[in-house]
Amino acid sequence: MKFEKGETYIFALGGLGEVGKNMYCVMHNDELIITDAGVIFPGGELMGIDYVIPDFSFLKQNESKIKGLFITHGHEDHIGAIPFLLSEVNIPAIYAPNQAAALIRKKLEDRGIKYNNLYVYNDKNVYKFKEVSVEFYRTTHSIPDSHGIVIHTPNGTVVTTGDFKFDLTPIGPIADLHKIAKLGSEGVTLLLSDSTNAMNEGISNSESKVDSALDDLFTKHNSRIIIATFASNIYRLKHIVDTCKRHGRKIVVFGRSMENNIEISIEGGYIKHKNLFITPEEANSLPGEKVCVLCTGTQGEPLAALSRLADGTHKHIKLRSDDIVVFSSSAIPGNALSISRTINKLYLKGITVYTNTSLSDIHASGHGNEEELKWMIRLIKPKYFMPFHGEYRMLKKHADIAVSCDIPRENTFVLSNGDVLSMKNGVIKKAGFIQAGDSYVDGNRVGEVSNAVMKDRKVMANDGIVIVIANMDMNGGKLLSSPSIITRGFVLVNENLELLKKLEHLAKDAINNKIKTGINYSDIKLEISNVLSSYISLHTGRKPIILPVIMDIKKGVKN
Amino acid sequence: MKFEKGETYIFALGGLGEVGKNMYCVMHNDELIITDAGVIFPGGELMGIDYVIPDFSFLKQNESKIKGLFITHGHEDHIGAIPFLLSEVNIPAIYAPNQAAALIRKKLEDRGIKYNNLYVYNDKNVYKFKEVSVEFYRTTHSIPDSHGIVIHTPNGTVVTTGDFKFDLTPIGPIADLHKIAKLGSEGVTLLLSDSTNAMNEGISNSESKVDSALDDLFTKHNSRIIIATFASNIYRLKHIVDTCKRHGRKIVVFGRSMENNIEISIEGGYIKHKNLFITPEEANSLPGEKVCVLCTGTQGEPLAALSRLADGTHKHIKLRSDDIVVFSSSAIPGNALSISRTINKLYLKGITVYTNTSLSDIHASGHGNEEELKWMIRLIKPKYFMPFHGEYRMLKKHADIAVSCDIPRENTFVLSNGDVLSMKNGVIKKAGFIQAGDSYVDGNRVGEVSNAVMKDRKVMANDGIVIVIANMDMNGGKLLSSPSIITRGFVLVNENLELLKKLEHLAKDAINNKIKTGINYSDIKLEISNVLSSYISLHTGRKPIILPVIMDIKKGVKN
Repeated sequence: MKFEKGETYIFALGGLGEVGKNMYCVMHNDELIITDAGVIFPGGELMGIDYVIPDFSFLKQNESKIKGLFITHGHEDHIGAIPFLLSEVNIPAIYAPNQAAALIRKKLEDRGIKYNNLYVYNDKNVYKFKEVSVEFYRTTHSIPDSHGIVIHTPNGTVVTTGDFKFDLTPIGPIADLHKIAKLGSEGVTLLLSDSTNAMNEGISNSESKVDSALDDLFTKHNSRIIIATFASNIYRLKHIVDTCKRHGRKIVVFGRSMENNIEISIEGGYIKHKNLFITPEEANSLPGEKVCVLCTGTQGEPLAALSRLADGTHKHIKLRSDDIVVFSSSAIPGNALSISRTINKLYLKGITVYTNTSLSDIHASGHGNEEELKWMIRLIKPKYFMPFHGEYRMLKKHADIAVSCDIPRENTFVLSNGDVLSMKNGVIKKAGFIQAGDSYVDGNRVGEVSNAVMKDRKVMANDGIVIVIANMDMNGGKLLSSPSIITRGFVLVNENLELLKKLEHLAKDAINNKIKTGINYSDIKLEISNVLSSYISLHTGRKPIILPVIMDIKKGVKN
Repeated sequence: MKFEKGETYIFALGGLGEVGKNMYCVMHNDELIITDAGVIFPGGELMGIDYVIPDFSFLKQNESKIKGLFITHGHEDHIGAIPFLLSEVNIPAIYAPNQAAALIRKKLEDRGIKYNNLYVYNDKNVYKFKEVSVEFYRTTHSIPDSHGIVIHTPNGTVVTTGDFKFDLTPIGPIADLHKIAKLGSEGVTLLLSDSTNAMNEGISNSESKVDSALDDLFTKHNSRIIIATFASNIYRLKHIVDTCKRHGRKIVVFGRSMENNIEISIEGGYIKHKNLFITPEEANSLPGEKVCVLCTGTQGEPLAALSRLADGTHKHIKLRSDDIVVFSSSAIPGNALSISRTINKLYLKGITVYTNTSLSDIHASGHGNEEELKWMIRLIKPKYFMPFHGEYRMLKKHADIAVSCDIPRENTFVLSNGDVLSMKNGVIKKAGFIQAGDSYVDGNRVGEVSNAVMKDRKVMANDGIVIVIANMDMNGGKLLSSPSIITRGFVLVNENLELLKKLEHLAKDAINNKIKTGINYSDIKLEISNVLSSYISLHTGRKPIILPVIMDIKKGVKN
């Protein structure tokens, strides 16, 4: 699409239609402001993929305009793509609040990336570029130093919330309600707001309720307590450490992400009482009432610490029937089965288990429910509204919420990644779209795995692959030998020799039939695929990938 | 107590330890600002009393300092005492928002009171006196034009909320969140905030939910609909009228307070569709599906329209078994019995009844729950906090809420009517107390009925009175004839001649015994009381008032 001089453009490279991979941009002439650069951790259907990150093509093409990457907070779905972004695109500066900056620094160090332009901002800072300026307001979320970002342009002001809730009795500082109201009083053209919990009515639980629920648990039980929680929820970790301090328990930590976050939070002063942390050996030598185990594995992930404890395969600690296990967490959709599997294993050992369904105050979300979203809309009172950070049903519901708060329906935009809004003199319209999508990171290589590959992996994961290799002399117009059939993940070869022999014959016949009507590699390959697919589907009910490979005796493999 | 020059004083003449009778004052040197002047409608235990109003003694004594009475909104517990106040104290001006002013005007007219200094304010106005100034911010409550009041003094700023909730999807304008936040940003010394629903967790229902619940009811039923609601809830009346308009129903109104409020709200433009209102005769000539009856009686009050309908004693309308009766209301504590009596009568007639227990969205309170109170405290972020408008348990809970929102415990004040706070250079302390209490209004006479009278009425209401009249010649030291016993509300005389004769003898003996030890009226009366009380209590289990009257043959009645 064409970008007009003097207009401002707003678009997402990630975060619309999904929870994760957040990346939102505001571009005015030759100034491009990026907020956040996150990953999604792929679900089970993305085989062999470590991360999904945004497609950076647009940024690469407009590299010279980039003024900086501004980070709202330090969660992986907002900072996880930074190493990959830096390796592809020249980013002149990254501005992040303190805790996020520490996490980014560690992330870059771990990958051996040297980057000298990471700056720490606070909510007093204003970054002024040629025509665009950027400032910040404090929000409440499950990690310290979370901020919303305000981008002033000649055509109007764009406010993004980052992730937020309104917790009026928070752990840590309260959101800057007065700055938010002041922004609203001064006039905001467009609000982009967190839709994660838009489908949840009412208000979210306060972290101080979690604090007192934890305290009650520690008062009630004097055996060993094992708590699984999200490693990223720094305030929760802080509660737990403070509660251990009050109740005279030492803490042993299992899970690399948990250890990293605690280390960084102790360095940053967000978590105190460093001397409470002990080694597994020390923990095993103390009575149960003096020990708290803090670990990962809230989602029943097979390799996480809690799962290994439940399986009895943890190398340092063995569970006992008088242990108390607490899930200070909620189930991420899709994980119910693996969580209940872990819980059942714990029950089998006679262990007492608390989850947020048996004890509701043991967890609080970091994202605001419907009424909190209304407060943000009412305080910012934007002219236009664009829900972000959510699946489409969440974005849609959030737009409905905005309409209930007097935003005209036609001023709400439920968009996809790559859709572009234009803003001119305070008027916003849909303007077109740019390239956006998923890049898959397999190991450390970016972008080498395409969507098509992912589809193949998925098919193969279900039904395997059947490879047909045919040696031909195309000039002579003949098959030199019977095709070879190689399979992986399809059937057990030894038990299905007959089937494989049949497939060989079918492939041979298909090639010979096709040669009669003229020689065309594509046609021959298609014919092989069709014939074998039909037969396999009919006789086995499976739909493996059929991969015909033609070797020309004179020219090599033909594609 | 002594008031120091240069200090500012804050106190309540009503509204602390009770829901109603609101009257709060701020005094600085010779400037006295009064906010609200309300009544409480007495419960059953105040016999023959029409209203309870504040004791105005302090205002009478400081009449010359009064700069004005500022009204937050037009509910009786905030304006009901105005006629009595004006008859006792010279009030130079009353400032009220539009709807409240209309209601005050009507109230004064009805009582034939001429008053020329009633002014309408809006939230742009600022009233500046010598050292004190007063301004306003819009709030949401169940009546239009509700405001909070801000009083600036040389020693600090005092913000009172009036009655409020935070409804983010209100009927009518939303509270001025931005002005509230701005006041907070500029600095508030003391917040006085509405405690009515401090004991209720979470957030209150939104009026727009009531609106859609009503619409659903009207869609579902095509027979006659009778709705009882609070006459003072103008927004609810507006919903109902608008819903009738949409569904093609005409409206007949029963209940004087309801008729008054609708008339004034139509005049003020708060309620539209005047032509929908019809007479009872017109209503009876229309099919049920075209009629909605709007009436008083949500609390089962015996003389209210709904009770008379339920009893079949209403002179205009008879209920039918296919009628739908809706209580768009909640039970005020203490009224559960009379309400359920009314509902049972309706069920007996085969009528379908909806209440807020069977259909929760059919009512929304006009007062904010705990989380809304937190929002007010967080936005105003006062240095000191004084909960008002509530019983003590509500005030206490509200103070706890303030502490959870970072107000230091020692900066919260749970006070009684008459307790005085002093404010000097932004520092607030308890300073003493002034006269405050209840005045009872019996008919139209103010202050003639004392607390003691009320106690007597209460005793008489339960057990009646026994009057003992003795004719004596005190100089001669003798009883001239056997005392006469007159009773009211004690026992049926004809069926208890023996008991009454016994009392006569007891009284006679008591007098004669007492005369032997010297003649003293008080002693003799006390002896009569004691002897008769004991006997009556022992033999009947009752505790009537015993009233001995001594007639001296030479000097008349002796007191």
